[in-house]
Amino acid sequence: MIYFDSDYMAGAHPDVMQHLVETNLEQTVGYGCDQYTEHAIQLIREACGTPHAQVSLLVGGTQTNATIIDGILARHEGVLAAESAHINVHEAGAIEATGHKILILPQHEGKVWAEEVENYINEFYRDETFLHMVAPGMLYISFPTEYGTIYTLNELEALSQVCREAQIPLYIDGARLGYGLAADGGDVTLKDIARLADVFYIGGTKMGTLMGEAVVVTNPNLLKNITPLTKQHGALLAKGRLLGVQFEALFTNDLYMQIGRYAVELAMELKEEFIARGYEPVVDSPTNQQFFRLPNVLIDRLRQHASFELWGPQGETHSIVRFVTSWSTTYNDINQLVNLI
Amino acid sequence: MIYFDSDYMAGAHPDVMQHLVETNLEQTVGYGCDQYTEHAIQLIREACGTPHAQVSLLVGGTQTNATIIDGILARHEGVLAAESAHINVHEAGAIEATGHKILILPQHEGKVWAEEVENYINEFYRDETFLHMVAPGMLYISFPTEYGTIYTLNELEALSQVCREAQIPLYIDGARLGYGLAADGGDVTLKDIARLADVFYIGGTKMGTLMGEAVVVTNPNLLKNITPLTKQHGALLAKGRLLGVQFEALFTNDLYMQIGRYAVELAMELKEEFIARGYEPVVDSPTNQQFFRLPNVLIDRLRQHASFELWGPQGETHSIVRFVTSWSTTYNDINQLVNLI
Amino acid sequence: MIYFDSDYMAGAHPDVMQHLVETNLEQTVGYGCDQYTEHAIQLIREACGTPHAQVSLLVGGTQTNATIIDGILARHEGVLAAESAHINVHEAGAIEATGHKILILPQHEGKVWAEEVENYINEFYRDETFLHMVAPGMLYISFPTEYGTIYTLNELEALSQVCREAQIPLYIDGARLGYGLAADGGDVTLKDIARLADVFYIGGTKMGTLMGEAVVVTNPNLLKNITPLTKQHGALLAKGRLLGVQFEALFTNDLYMQIGRYAVELAMELKEEFIARGYEPVVDSPTNQQFFRLPNVLIDRLRQHASFELWGPQGETHSIVRFVTSWSTTYNDINQLVNLI
Amino acid sequence: MIYFDSDYMAGAHPDVMQHLVETNLEQTVGYGCDQYTEHAIQLIREACGTPHAQVSLLVGGTQTNATIIDGILARHEGVLAAESAHINVHEAGAIEATGHKILILPQHEGKVWAEEVENYINEFYRDETFLHMVAPGMLYISFPTEYGTIYTLNELEALSQVCREAQIPLYIDGARLGYGLAADGGDVTLKDIARLADVFYIGGTKMGTLMGEAVVVTNPNLLKNITPLTKQHGALLAKGRLLGVQFEALFTNDLYMQIGRYAVELAMELKEEFIARGYEPVVDSPTNQQFFRLPNVLIDRLRQHASFELWGPQGETHSIVRFVTSWSTTYNDINQLVNLI
Repeated sequence: MIYFDSDYMAGAHPDVMQHLVETNLEQTVGYGCDQYTEHAIQLIREACGTPHAQVSLLVGGTQTNATIIDGILARHEGVLAAESAHINVHEAGAIEATGHKILILPQHEGKVWAEEVENYINEFYRDETFLHMVAPGMLYISFPTEYGTIYTLNELEALSQVCREAQIPLYIDGARLGYGLAADGGDVTLKDIARLADVFYIGGTKMGTLMGEAVVVTNPNLLKNITPLTKQHGALLAKGRLLGVQFEALFTNDLYMQIGRYAVELAMELKEEFIARGYEPVVDSPTNQQFFRLPNVLIDRLRQHASFELWGPQGETHSIVRFVTSWSTTYNDINQLVNLI
Repeated sequence: MIYFDSDYMAGAHPDVMQHLVETNLEQTVGYGCDQYTEHAIQLIREACGTPHAQVSLLVGGTQTNATIIDGILARHEGVLAAESAHINVHEAGAIEATGHKILILPQHEGKVWAEEVENYINEFYRDETFLHMVAPGMLYISFPTEYGTIYTLNELEALSQVCREAQIPLYIDGARLGYGLAADGGDVTLKDIARLADVFYIGGTKMGTLMGEAVVVTNPNLLKNITPLTKQHGALLAKGRLLGVQFEALFTNDLYMQIGRYAVELAMELKEEFIARGYEPVVDSPTNQQFFRLPNVLIDRLRQHASFELWGPQGETHSIVRFVTSWSTTYNDINQLVNLI
Repeated sequence: MIYFDSDYMAGAHPDVMQHLVETNLEQTVGYGCDQYTEHAIQLIREACGTPHAQVSLLVGGTQTNATIIDGILARHEGVLAAESAHINVHEAGAIEATGHKILILPQHEGKVWAEEVENYINEFYRDETFLHMVAPGMLYISFPTEYGTIYTLNELEALSQVCREAQIPLYIDGARLGYGLAADGGDVTLKDIARLADVFYIGGTKMGTLMGEAVVVTNPNLLKNITPLTKQHGALLAKGRLLGVQFEALFTNDLYMQIGRYAVELAMELKEEFIARGYEPVVDSPTNQQFFRLPNVLIDRLRQHASFELWGPQGETHSIVRFVTSWSTTYNDINQLVNLI
Repeated sequence: MIYFDSDYMAGAHPDVMQHLVETNLEQTVGYGCDQYTEHAIQLIREACGTPHAQVSLLVGGTQTNATIIDGILARHEGVLAAESAHINVHEAGAIEATGHKILILPQHEGKVWAEEVENYINEFYRDETFLHMVAPGMLYISFPTEYGTIYTLNELEALSQVCREAQIPLYIDGARLGYGLAADGGDVTLKDIARLADVFYIGGTKMGTLMGEAVVVTNPNLLKNITPLTKQHGALLAKGRLLGVQFEALFTNDLYMQIGRYAVELAMELKEEFIARGYEPVVDSPTNQQFFRLPNVLIDRLRQHASFELWGPQGETHSIVRFVTSWSTTYNDINQLVNLI
């Protein structure tokens, strides 16, 4: 069986695993107060070009989103997000469980438009009944999006500007950040992300760690009490140094970006091969997620040898499927899949 | 100034006020354990044709919705509702504040379609990732809707059937129930509501009481602990007998339905007069709320003498406005308004 | 039957009811944006000596506590309160339902000691694991307390000072504020309350209104968004002017304090009569609540003619009972009760 | 530096790490639907003697407690727990953040007494105002407790019986379960735990895994929807097989119990050495946590070479400290510590 379900089908990238093994028996203090975590934070600050950013290492993506959004919003506020946003679809209501509404924006291949964000905010305050409605308190975007698409630098600049004018923070969910920064034809760098967002996270789980997400807060007025908040949300790892060790590996020798580039390269190969066989992608994704609408009979046949996700419910004759590459995908995996078509 | 903002612009209907005054100095136990409340509950059960229904009197609409929905849903479930539902728009996130997502259905002049409810549920369980999504745990509808429209008996039967097949409760928000039951051309009775819903509430505030909403639970497996839930949600009135006294008045001598019929009659008059002057209603509402798209210049002029709501943010040249009648509106009020056009 | 269960056994004080009746048919805008509410707010500001205080009228006590506490605390913070505090015992978990822990302080006849508050905060920050614990984010006290006792001015000054040094707000639950200000031998005025608290509420329900509590925020940095918060908590009355009308009556001609003094006078009479018959009060309350430990046989006999609460579960031979007076209690009621002993 | 802070100072037990390494590059489906997890679940069921128990692997302890407690309680219910319970002290309000009150019981060296649980429940329902109070909806105990003490089999039987008579579930937090089962002089087995609890968890983090806690639900009516609940609480690991792999190792060749016995042996050694030097333990713990009240000067001196926790805030001349052993502690570590005294 070959696996294209997602980018978390294997354990850790060998370099990450190696570092875990070599530090395994060492004893350190817990909860991320150790030297490995401290060093990892330094490396992340350097990579982001933000020497004073507050960096925290949390365990998983859903809890990271819940911790950040719950920590930032006032009780009467909600978070603006695309209808297709992970927090709106695939986190089992984790945001609402913290008491906050997701204020839905139209999605355009997974992206939101700065103009529509601006309009939403303007219309909100022009509504005479706005005090009875949930106020937009922050903007959530994902980079890359749930459809594998990315924002251009111009688009990000525009979103950031809209948020700053409206005085609401911009939060970027970077569960797959490395694949977005390595996107085919992309023009956004990690430093751009750090400059334009108020808070974002650098995903580890989908980029080669066993688990772990690095939250970077660049706006010093946000999330001053992130440690108890993280604990309250169950996102503070007892053996916190494990996250430090893994992010130290990811941010040494450019490994994070290498992983991104490698997986994107494979995804581009996969896309071309599907196109060459007459299957047009559903969205033109330049990153490691590729979406195709395939006949159900082909899907059934492929599934005998390959594992991948249906995207949404099965259609009557055709369904949308997703193929995801990662550091653990091989050219051989791609070839095998393509040969099955 | 004449008031068409809503149906809560005056105090209580004179009969209700009279009953409050005549019982004012009497002493009773608190929290709704008094004889007036007991009698009111009996009258409501009779009117609904449900001798065993569990009836509770709560203070206001938003807290009633939050108490019922929070009390029914399991933690991983959400509530299906029209995009235009009061709980989704004008309750300041009260449902999400209890931890639950509102699962949005398309609205058709404020109504949801049974077929679309059914499809939503079916597609949900056919999605391979449904365990990561918020499960539909109940259906919320309003009768009449936020646009003043009503469901026909057939439509209600269909919705009820879909819910029962899916084994999720149907909850009807009856903030303006009396106006819906008295709708021009409507065919739904209070007994139908009681038969088809699992739980609903009979609005008092908008139907002539100072405050108060009567929750009727006909499904005996729901909301077994409604008293502590009501207390927790701040909806248990210390002087609970005030709600009993008022609902006793409303359900004596058919007052509740009389109020409904009177206000609807005035609203139909208002609608005809607007139509006669060339203004078509935005939706064809058969109840006490009427919506028109008017030129901003006319709105500005009307507002010098009449108070009413803009429906949504102001448009560039025209805006949608709402006129609402109630037991406290007079024919004279209608005439004055019409003469201003 | 004579009623001593609580101070909410009758409707509204006649002056309050009179004002409701005379304004009943008038139409005004809703949600507290009317002239009556505006005037009531002015009267309250004057009575408090705080011309710039933010005053809001909410419906009931439990929701007022939940709204204020939830609105003030950061997500990782809890509220310090006496073990016997109403929010800790008799609000069905309304505070926890907003996500916040109640941090329990010892109670001394219902009161907390400034020294113990200070110690709690100091010890908290001296605990090396404090980031894993719920931080004290505000102090809740009730005046008078749940045992009818009151703080002296010195005690209140000390509590206020501790809070200001620790930079946490002091919140005073004044459900029975008027009875506390009129306490036998008390030295605290409404202006003291307003000067020493950051936020407090002036109870209406237990002081002669049908319902309604007036929240006074004197610290301008707290609760800036109280309107949507109030709506979210279901505490925003549609017919908001009803609260304005009632508080206008309460704060006209010193009615609020008159009610307080009258009920306290009756309570002192009741206390003396009990003492004269050999029953010592459980706590020496100078306000309208009186607690006695009585033999169960006497309780059973009294209950044939009088209604009152057991305080806590029934004991084996004796139980603690509470007698409460209010504006609606008469000297005749007291005499009848006393004659039954 | 030698580490006695807690039982999570090193990485994974070598056998666990070995299994992670050898399976690292293998690809499997995510979220715990893999073969390793399935096998681990089988092994756990066998060890518990409960072939039909529902077993789930979650990431960390705080989120496990929050997920289980939130999933079991009705909205108006709270959880009974000792004042010293981890959920009441060191989880940053995670339980309250789900909306539930912790109902505090007296602690006796960390334990609750069956008689006091029974009394609490009886008194609750005998209080005439109980509908205004938070109902006891389940009992939480930890085994071993936060003070390292354990319940005897008789005590556990009594607690279980009280819960079953009251029809509330018994939940056992087994963060350190293996150390409790291996306690010096203990008479409780894993099968006893499974028989007497309705739900419990077998801690991995403190017993040799990188992270991970195995929830065992033996009462088939509880927690039917644990997967979406787990996701909502951020406790569903994307690379779920990592938990399966680790618990497979723990439950192979009796490793889990071996780890428990080894650490307890070291702790008994440490205790004896302290006693031999004149330091009496604060509680007589038969497990891997040992508490001593030491002079601050000694503490300062020890801290130059050894890392350990102050238990609570520092005292004026003496403070309570905790020493914890684990699989990663060596006899040499003990000797070094003892020699420092």
